[in-house]
Amino acid sequence: MDKERFLKQLAFILEIDKEKSVFRQTHIKGYSRRENDAEHAWHLALMIFLLKEYANESFDVAKAMAMALIHDIVEIDAGDTYAYDTEGLSTQKERESKAADRIFGLLPDDQNNILRSLFEEFEEGKTAEARFARTMDNLQPILLNDSNNGKDWREHDVNKQQVYNRQKSSELGSEEIWKFTKELIEKNVKNGNIKEN
Amino acid sequence: MDKERFLKQLAFILEIDKEKSVFRQTHIKGYSRRENDAEHAWHLALMIFLLKEYANESFDVAKAMAMALIHDIVEIDAGDTYAYDTEGLSTQKERESKAADRIFGLLPDDQNNILRSLFEEFEEGKTAEARFARTMDNLQPILLNDSNNGKDWREHDVNKQQVYNRQKSSELGSEEIWKFTKELIEKNVKNGNIKEN
Repeated sequence: MDKERFLKQLAFILEIDKEKSVFRQTHIKGYSRRENDAEHAWHLALMIFLLKEYANESFDVAKAMAMALIHDIVEIDAGDTYAYDTEGLSTQKERESKAADRIFGLLPDDQNNILRSLFEEFEEGKTAEARFARTMDNLQPILLNDSNNGKDWREHDVNKQQVYNRQKSSELGSEEIWKFTKELIEKNVKNGNIKEN
Repeated sequence: MDKERFLKQLAFILEIDKEKSVFRQTHIKGYSRRENDAEHAWHLALMIFLLKEYANESFDVAKAMAMALIHDIVEIDAGDTYAYDTEGLSTQKERESKAADRIFGLLPDDQNNILRSLFEEFEEGKTAEARFARTMDNLQPILLNDSNNGKDWREHDVNKQQVYNRQKSSELGSEEIWKFTKELIEKNVKNGNIKEN
């Protein structure tokens, strides 16, 4: 064992523990509290494993799961940017890139490169793995919001166009899941959880 | 899309959200609160991905990660059994088997079988994947405890023999990590975080 290498890996493993304290806008089922990034990533990775049959194209499941597990690590420094926060979204790329430098940089160089490119691949959404992982990243909060009678949408006064803009990339990962998502959105517009405009 | 099948998968995905509310004895780094099972599973899966080079034998990384992600789902019904709770440990198998019937049983049959056997494989610890996943399941709380100056060990009056009994299976997954673990245990015995006997 190269002890210096191992200690770098452990330093990273302990550093990312902080992801358990980065909270999203979405609440867990039952609405008792907001969800944190680590739990969210766990949920996504399992959804990829369970729903992979609906992907438009075949993909490397392990790679997509790893992507899901690490995609929010940058938020330890950059914070969670709410999907409908226009101002936050304008500086998000820069903040997250700096965070990636620092946090993935704790790892030995080879693993820094692996995680950095997984993260960038997810962000760019141009591979089959990234497309399906992003479809799951869209579906997961919608399922939770729907199960909580749309309270998160109501609290943030979210309208139909905003939800469609956020969700439209789902089609690229899975046409079948996109079809289901549209039904779920329309149901929540109809019952007033999502504003018509 | 077979809608009945998809709805079963979604029911399972929403049901396991409860894992975010099952708390372990171990505290997150900084000791602000106890860790929940979903966060713990996320941490394990990433540790498998990052530390796989130390495994005694080569193994299927995706399978071991999936195992880590699902290994505590049964605790939604069965609760977390603390590693040093002798009474709880005596009924753990039965409680967890019933929980596996109900929770994995929400899935379509084929996926019920896949998750059930992943769970049992992890429990039995007889494959390379299970052995390494269990090594990570041992290492993760020890890293957190050590980072928190041993407060969890102190609070539960844990002694050296108990820690060795719990950790000994780590050797089966990784001799190198077992060697490091022993150093970490001895350091914490020396500074009084773990009782000598």
